[in-house]
Amino acid sequence: MSARAGMRAIDFTRVTLTDPFWAPRLETNRRVTLDIQYKHLVETGRIAGIDPEHRPGDRSAHHQFWDSDVAKWIETAAYSLAVHRDGVLEARVDEVIERFAKLQRPDGYMNSWYTAVEPEKRFTNLRDMHELYCAVHLIEAAVAYHRATGKRRFLDMVCRYADLIDSLFGAEPGKRRGYPGHQELELALVKLYRATGRERYLRLAKYFLDERGRRPHYFDLEAEARGEDPRAWRHGSYEYNQSHLPVREQTRVVGHAVRALYMYSGMADVARETGDRSLLEACDVLWHNLCSEQLFVTGGVGQSRTNEGFTRPYDLPEETAYCETCAAVAFVFWNHRLLQAKAEARFADCMELALYNGAVSGVSLAGDRFFYVNPLASLGDHHRQEWFICACCPGNISRLIASVGQYFYSEADDAAWVHLYGAGRAELRVAGTELVLTQRTGYPWDGTVVLELDPARSAAFTLALRIPGWCRAPRLSVNGEPVDLGGRIAAGYARIHRTWNRGDRVTLELPMPVEGIYADPRVRLANGKVALRRGPIVYCVEEVDNPFTPLARLALPRSAPLEAVYERDLLGGVVTVRAEVDVAVGREGQALYAMDPPRTERRTIKAVPYAVWDNRAPGEMLVWLRESDR
Amino acid sequence: MSARAGMRAIDFTRVTLTDPFWAPRLETNRRVTLDIQYKHLVETGRIAGIDPEHRPGDRSAHHQFWDSDVAKWIETAAYSLAVHRDGVLEARVDEVIERFAKLQRPDGYMNSWYTAVEPEKRFTNLRDMHELYCAVHLIEAAVAYHRATGKRRFLDMVCRYADLIDSLFGAEPGKRRGYPGHQELELALVKLYRATGRERYLRLAKYFLDERGRRPHYFDLEAEARGEDPRAWRHGSYEYNQSHLPVREQTRVVGHAVRALYMYSGMADVARETGDRSLLEACDVLWHNLCSEQLFVTGGVGQSRTNEGFTRPYDLPEETAYCETCAAVAFVFWNHRLLQAKAEARFADCMELALYNGAVSGVSLAGDRFFYVNPLASLGDHHRQEWFICACCPGNISRLIASVGQYFYSEADDAAWVHLYGAGRAELRVAGTELVLTQRTGYPWDGTVVLELDPARSAAFTLALRIPGWCRAPRLSVNGEPVDLGGRIAAGYARIHRTWNRGDRVTLELPMPVEGIYADPRVRLANGKVALRRGPIVYCVEEVDNPFTPLARLALPRSAPLEAVYERDLLGGVVTVRAEVDVAVGREGQALYAMDPPRTERRTIKAVPYAVWDNRAPGEMLVWLRESDR
Repeated sequence: MSARAGMRAIDFTRVTLTDPFWAPRLETNRRVTLDIQYKHLVETGRIAGIDPEHRPGDRSAHHQFWDSDVAKWIETAAYSLAVHRDGVLEARVDEVIERFAKLQRPDGYMNSWYTAVEPEKRFTNLRDMHELYCAVHLIEAAVAYHRATGKRRFLDMVCRYADLIDSLFGAEPGKRRGYPGHQELELALVKLYRATGRERYLRLAKYFLDERGRRPHYFDLEAEARGEDPRAWRHGSYEYNQSHLPVREQTRVVGHAVRALYMYSGMADVARETGDRSLLEACDVLWHNLCSEQLFVTGGVGQSRTNEGFTRPYDLPEETAYCETCAAVAFVFWNHRLLQAKAEARFADCMELALYNGAVSGVSLAGDRFFYVNPLASLGDHHRQEWFICACCPGNISRLIASVGQYFYSEADDAAWVHLYGAGRAELRVAGTELVLTQRTGYPWDGTVVLELDPARSAAFTLALRIPGWCRAPRLSVNGEPVDLGGRIAAGYARIHRTWNRGDRVTLELPMPVEGIYADPRVRLANGKVALRRGPIVYCVEEVDNPFTPLARLALPRSAPLEAVYERDLLGGVVTVRAEVDVAVGREGQALYAMDPPRTERRTIKAVPYAVWDNRAPGEMLVWLRESDR
Repeated sequence: MSARAGMRAIDFTRVTLTDPFWAPRLETNRRVTLDIQYKHLVETGRIAGIDPEHRPGDRSAHHQFWDSDVAKWIETAAYSLAVHRDGVLEARVDEVIERFAKLQRPDGYMNSWYTAVEPEKRFTNLRDMHELYCAVHLIEAAVAYHRATGKRRFLDMVCRYADLIDSLFGAEPGKRRGYPGHQELELALVKLYRATGRERYLRLAKYFLDERGRRPHYFDLEAEARGEDPRAWRHGSYEYNQSHLPVREQTRVVGHAVRALYMYSGMADVARETGDRSLLEACDVLWHNLCSEQLFVTGGVGQSRTNEGFTRPYDLPEETAYCETCAAVAFVFWNHRLLQAKAEARFADCMELALYNGAVSGVSLAGDRFFYVNPLASLGDHHRQEWFICACCPGNISRLIASVGQYFYSEADDAAWVHLYGAGRAELRVAGTELVLTQRTGYPWDGTVVLELDPARSAAFTLALRIPGWCRAPRLSVNGEPVDLGGRIAAGYARIHRTWNRGDRVTLELPMPVEGIYADPRVRLANGKVALRRGPIVYCVEEVDNPFTPLARLALPRSAPLEAVYERDLLGGVVTVRAEVDVAVGREGQALYAMDPPRTERRTIKAVPYAVWDNRAPGEMLVWLRESDR
C-alpha cells in the first residue's frame, strides 16, 4: 500500500461488525448467498464450462463472460474465508481453481470462451467481447484468495495471464495499442501490483488509461481488421465505453455506467500509485458532474436501460430508472478511492448513500434473490430474481457485502479516520501504536455513537470523525466533556487532536429526524415531490403497508409530522416512518374526468427503507411522494 | 338511408361552414393537403405501384397496404369535389382510377401487392396482411367519388371486387369462414350497401361480425394451412385484433385501437341497418368501458406504442401516450354512429372532444405535416412529419376534415338536431319541409350561438340543441324570450317544440369560462394535476410561450384566476389562457438534492389549444399541469 496520500484504506479483515444492518447481511451472505450462487454456477454450466473440453465449439455450453461470474464467487468466498475458516468452502474453491488451471494455456491465456468456442479469435475484439473483463475478475479473485489463504497457486496463474496481456498490449513497438472494451482491468492490475509488487502491472494499468480514446481509434482499427465497418457498431458512439476522448479530457459522465465507474476507480488507483494528479483532477470533474446532475437519491447510478448508463443532466426517472446494482457497487468503489485520495467527506457521504440504499437493495434479505435493476418506483411487476443469464450483479453485491468493513475506517500516520458508523471493532495502527477502536451504537437506526479508543499505548493523534452531510446538528463529547464543533470540522470531518489513552470514550450524537429531500427543479419528474430520509436511510412506500393504490394518490402535506418507529419484527428490524397523508379518493361509477378536484381522505402511511423493498408481498413502490402545501 | 332510428345522419354537402375553426382547415385541406398528399403518393411510388406491371415481384416497389393510402386520397378528393368543382383534381382522380381499373383482375380482384408480388398467396393471410383493409378504402373512395361526381366506373369496379369477396367468404357451404385481420370492411360494406341497395353487402358485413372470434378460430386454421404455428404469432393474443371473443361477448376495449374502433363503428352500422340490438348493446358496454377507463382528456385513444392500442384501466400516460391520429378519427366515426342510434349527447360530447383536440392535432395548421402519434406531453422531440412509410393517418385526418360538416346536425321526421356549434348554414328536411338553419357564432372561441331557422313553410317540429357536457350554465331564448331550460333537457339536448316560422331566432348561450379538469385518482400520473379546458378546447403549455423548462417546474395554484384572451394573430386566431403560476427555481451551482424545498417565483403562463401545438418553435409541451393548493 502506497503512502503517497495521508489516508490509507484498510483491509476489511481488521473490522468486525456487530451492527444491526451489516452483521446480519454478512452472515446471510456467508451462510446462504455463497452457497446458492455456487449452485447456480453449477446448474447453469458455468463451472463445467471452464473445462476447455466441455463441448468444445458449442456456443451454448459457454458464454463470453461467464468466467467472471465464477471468479466473483471465488472473490466473495475468499473474503468469507479470510474471516471465517471453512474447509468445505475452501476445498470447493480449490476445485474450481484447478479447473481454471486446466483451462490455462501454456502461454498463460485463461478464458473459457476463446479456448472452447473461438480459439482463433483471441484478442480480436476487445471492444465487445469482455475478454479482458473476464481477466479482471480472475485477477481480483486470485488476489483475494491469496490474501485469505496464503495459497499462491491461483495468484501465480493470473500473473502468468497478466504477463501475457502485458506482452501483447502497450505503447512499446511490436505491441498492440489496445485497451479494454469493458473497463475494470485498470483497477485489477493495480490490485495485482499491490499484491505482488510487480511494477509492470501498474505500468500496464496506466498504459490502458493513457491510450484510451486516442486517434487513430483502436476500436476502429480492430473492427476494420475484422472486416467490419466501425460505424456500424450497435452502440453508436464510443461514449458508450468512455473511449470517445482521452480519459483526462473527459468532463461529463457518459455511456455505460458500470464501465465508466470501474474506469474512474482505476483512474483513482493509478493516480494514487503514480502520483499522477491529472487523473485525479479528471475524476474530480467527473464526480462533480455525476453528483450534481445524474445521481439518484438512492445512490443509484445510470438512468437508461438502452445503454445501461447515463443520459442527460437532470434526467432522473422513477419506474424506468435503470440503476444497475453493479453501478451502485462501482460507485462505492470509486468514492472509496477518492476518499482516500482527497480526505473529503463528500465522497464518504456518497459511499454511505449507495451502501445503505441503492447498492444493498440488490439482494433480498434472505440472500437468495437479486435485483439487476433498482428502479425508484414500481407498479408491482419488478422483483428480485434468483439468477440471470448476465449475472454480474449477484456476485458484485456479494463481494461488496463480504468486504464492507473496509469502508468504515482509514488510517494515517497521525490520524484514525472514521467514515461510517456501526457497532463493531476495528484494529488500526496510528502514531506508531495499535489502536482498537470500538463503536457502540444502534446505527443506522439510532444516531448516537460511542467510540471507545484502546491504544496499545497512549499516543497523540487526530481522531477524525465524519459528520454526515445529512446531519444538521451533530454534538460531540470526549470522556463526557462536550466539545465545541465550531471550527473543528474540516472537509466534513470533526478532528480531535489529543493524546489518547486506553478507555477514552468519544460520544458523537448525530440527530436523525425524518427529513424531506427535494430535488433540483431541473429534475423534471421530481417537481412537487419529496423523498423521505432518516440518517443514511432513504425510504419508500410499498403497497403491502399502504393498500391504497395507485400510491400516486397520496400527497404528503409539507407540514405533516414524520414519526420514526423502530419495528423489531419487520424486515429484520428497521425503523419505519409514519405520516398522515391525504389520499385522493376515486369516484366509483363516475366519469373519468370531472370539473372538481377529487375528494381526499386522511390516511396514515408507513414508509420502509428502500433497501428492503420487495421482500414481502409484491405491489407498488414509490420513493418520490407528492407533496401538498398544507 | 334507413329510417329505423328516429335520428338520421346527414351528408356533409348539406352543411357549409364559415366558422373560424373548421372553415380555414377545410380550405387548407383542399388547397394544400390534397396536393401535397398526391405528391407524396407519386414520389413514394404508391401511384406507380398500382400498375401490376410496375416491377412485378419486386417487394420494394409495392407495399401491403399502400393501396389504402391512395384510396383515402381519392375519398378526400371526392369530398372536396362534392362541394368545390375542380376539373384538374377530377382528371387526376380519374387517372388514378384507371390505374386501379388496369390492376383489377377479370374475377374482380383488386390489390396491388397480391397482384404484383405474391399472386399465389391471395387471401391466405387475412390475419396479418391488410388485404381486406385495402378493399375497405377502395370501397369508401368509390362510394364517395360516385356521390360527388355521379360517375359509376369506380363504384362498379369495387362492387365486382366486393362480389368476389362475398363469393369467397361466408357461413354458406363452400365458403371460407374468414374475416378481416384489420377490421373496417364491415363499415365499408354498409356504405356500399347504402350506395347500391344491394343487400349482399350488408349480409356480408353482418357475417364478418357474427363469425369473428368463433371457435375453431379462423386465424388458427389459416396459420396452420400456411404451415405456421398459430401460437407463434407476434401479437400473442387475438385481443390484438378483437377476435378473442365473439363481438357480442366483448365487454372491454382491448388490442389495436384503430382496428377496435373501426369494428365498433361497423357494429353500430350493421345494428342500424338490421335492427340487431345486441350489437348496439355490445357497443354501449364497450363505449362505457373506454370512456370510463381509457380515454385521454384530449379525446385521444390507445395508450401503448407496443400494440398501438389499449392497455389497462386508468393507464393514461403523458409523454408515452400513443393516441394515433387514426384512432381519434375512428373514435369520431363510432360516436357519430352511436349518436344517431341513441340520440344521447354523451356521444356528441366525445365526438366534439376528439374533433377539436386529439384528432385535428394530427395535421399542422399549414396542412403539410402530420402526427401519427399525439402524446399529452413532449420533451421537445416529437414533431409532425411530412409523410410516413405507414401513412394511414394523413389521409384519415384529411377525409375527416373534408367531411366534417356531417357531424354538426342530424334530422328526424319531427326534429332537427344540432350536435355541434359553428358559424355556417345547413339544409335540413324536417316535418315535411326544407329547413335552412343558420348559425351565427364565434364558436369555439365564443359560446354565444344564434340560430336562425328558415323553414320553407311554417312547421311544427322539435329543435334539439345539444347542451355540451362541459357547460355548467346554459341559457336559451327564442325570439328574444328566455326559455327556462329546467325540464327541457333530455339526454343532453334542450328540446324546443313549437311551430317554427321563417326568421325565428334561437339564442343559445354556453358560457365557457376556463376550467380545470381533474382525472379520476386511479389515473396514476394525473394525480395532483389539472388540465385546462375552455368550452370544447383542451389546452396545453408550450415552451415557445413559456420559456422556463422543464415545464414540470410550474404549479398552477388552485385559486389562480384563468384568463381567456383572443389572439387574432396567433396560430390562425385562437383563444389562449393566461394564469399566474409558481415556478420552482433551480439553485445554480448547488447540490442536486437539498433538505429544503426549492424557492418559487411567480410567472405568467400562456396556454394554447392542444390541437395547434407544435406549429411554432419546437420545445416542451404539457397538457397536465401540476396544481398547488394555494
